[in-house]
Amino acid sequence: MALEKLMGVMRPAIEDQLKNIILSTINEENFHDLASMLCYHLGWEGEGAGPEAQGKRIRPLLVLLCTTAAGADWPQALPAALAVELLHNFSLIHDDIQDQSRERRGRPTIWTKWGIAQAINAGDLMFTLANHSLLSLQADHDEGVVIRGIEILYQTSISLTKGQFLDLAYEKEKIIPMEAYWPMIAGKTAALLAASCELGALVAGIIPEKVKAFREFGYLLGMAFQVQDDWLGIWGDVSATGKSNKNDLVTGKKSLPVLYALNQNKGFFKRWKLGEIEPKEVADLVKLMALEGAEAYTRETADRLTAEALQALERSGGIGDGMVSLQELTSILLTRVR
Amino acid sequence: MALEKLMGVMRPAIEDQLKNIILSTINEENFHDLASMLCYHLGWEGEGAGPEAQGKRIRPLLVLLCTTAAGADWPQALPAALAVELLHNFSLIHDDIQDQSRERRGRPTIWTKWGIAQAINAGDLMFTLANHSLLSLQADHDEGVVIRGIEILYQTSISLTKGQFLDLAYEKEKIIPMEAYWPMIAGKTAALLAASCELGALVAGIIPEKVKAFREFGYLLGMAFQVQDDWLGIWGDVSATGKSNKNDLVTGKKSLPVLYALNQNKGFFKRWKLGEIEPKEVADLVKLMALEGAEAYTRETADRLTAEALQALERSGGIGDGMVSLQELTSILLTRVR
Repeated sequence: MALEKLMGVMRPAIEDQLKNIILSTINEENFHDLASMLCYHLGWEGEGAGPEAQGKRIRPLLVLLCTTAAGADWPQALPAALAVELLHNFSLIHDDIQDQSRERRGRPTIWTKWGIAQAINAGDLMFTLANHSLLSLQADHDEGVVIRGIEILYQTSISLTKGQFLDLAYEKEKIIPMEAYWPMIAGKTAALLAASCELGALVAGIIPEKVKAFREFGYLLGMAFQVQDDWLGIWGDVSATGKSNKNDLVTGKKSLPVLYALNQNKGFFKRWKLGEIEPKEVADLVKLMALEGAEAYTRETADRLTAEALQALERSGGIGDGMVSLQELTSILLTRVR
Repeated sequence: MALEKLMGVMRPAIEDQLKNIILSTINEENFHDLASMLCYHLGWEGEGAGPEAQGKRIRPLLVLLCTTAAGADWPQALPAALAVELLHNFSLIHDDIQDQSRERRGRPTIWTKWGIAQAINAGDLMFTLANHSLLSLQADHDEGVVIRGIEILYQTSISLTKGQFLDLAYEKEKIIPMEAYWPMIAGKTAALLAASCELGALVAGIIPEKVKAFREFGYLLGMAFQVQDDWLGIWGDVSATGKSNKNDLVTGKKSLPVLYALNQNKGFFKRWKLGEIEPKEVADLVKLMALEGAEAYTRETADRLTAEALQALERSGGIGDGMVSLQELTSILLTRVR
């Protein structure tokens, strides 16, 4: 598989350079614990450290694969790849505090180990390192490309905080309209995948029209990915996702199938209005949601977005192993059953 | 007064452009409350809005005054001025959560009004807007200057988070060595004032040696300012600072006079070791600290740093009303009695 071969060389480079950014920025003795927080979160230190704790590094891989598909050498895109991974992890650190999540990838979150105050600050530093990383593009690119890259990352950060604002605001409401779903996941998930693909294409130096197609691919992939994730949250082997041993119905998450079912104004809607759902009700309610069309709608939406993502990728004019790998990655991400 | 005249034109421009950044970035209907949080924090909206709630905008004024003193027109430096003010306010929003401060400038803090989760996110957005603002330097400056400006802001953000890390870490310890004080205030206070002056000089396009002198002026001014603040926290008219109606001895803050007195290993040290200080003990302990040399040491340190700041300003070769204003501002900041 082309993807496996490329990942085999890209992944070690990503880990090496990520570590290098953190340890070169925080190298004084009295900041040892500050570096430890970041290294713990990134899965290199502490109990449970290792590949499982590091996550899949999908976003930096997308950057490097897009650079490759756009016909350029991927190592020159590493500063952009690191930037999106650091930005992603900054948002995870703060999300975990905001959502009061005590675990991530099967390990205690930063705030549960070091407290909320230090966790906020660790997130702030991770955010700064994300921005800072892009400046290293100067080694291989002219200043215009560097500034354009910085602009893309800023716009993404604005989208992330806007999406998070909506997510937090909607938590307090029992029912929200279906239209509210799309701006939220556009900000929280799709914006960063769009930026990853755009940055990868940008540093390859291809024409703006093709950069735009790569961006659209990332955006649609992100939307499809989130819809698929929402499907998994109800119908997937939930206990195997490692995120929670609870079905999304119990946590009350306003995911796409839930919003669809609510808007049918039938049996699911009547039950939801009455208050929190107990684990013992889940099996019956999941069947009810399927009966009311929520599963078919969610699957169709994921399939449509996936098809649109692949069409955008076609328009990018990508080539070679990079292109094949992007197609493989899309297929893997969107046929997950856990 | 030169300062008064310049402030009279600079202050309205700062307020106008700050508002413009926020309202142009967050202009959609469903993000109305997000914009409100930032506008509330910056003192334009909600109960108690007005000049008192806005603060003095010292940092953006420093940027613009340095540009003027370096012989250039200040309006071209506005994007940098806004960036430092936004960065400062980002750090205040997160600090207030970290310190569990319920009030700032006599009004409830963001987290007490909107909760911790939304306050973290509002701070993240303020941080992003700070970074973003610098890109507007492109209108009047070449790309090299823009990138150098961005680099300065990133280094400052790293210093801020490192300083905050130390501050939070030291809170848990009863006694810390005096040497620990300087890296903490260098990061928490001096770094941003240094950046303000450096950015103001940078955009004026003067030679690097003089930019460096402006930076040193800002750094030393920041150190002097903090030492003076620490003096006020013990010997100032504390109830009039508007920050707290408690003396720093009661809050247990490890300020310079406290660390000095502790390191004398005499009466103050013996009392401090026993546990929290009650308000009724303050008057006697304040006298004891003075007897043990802490007041004289703090005042001498502030005076020495102020003199060094003014020497650095001389070396900058600044001219005209801008230069006179910087000297006036230094004098006002460092002779505060409240």
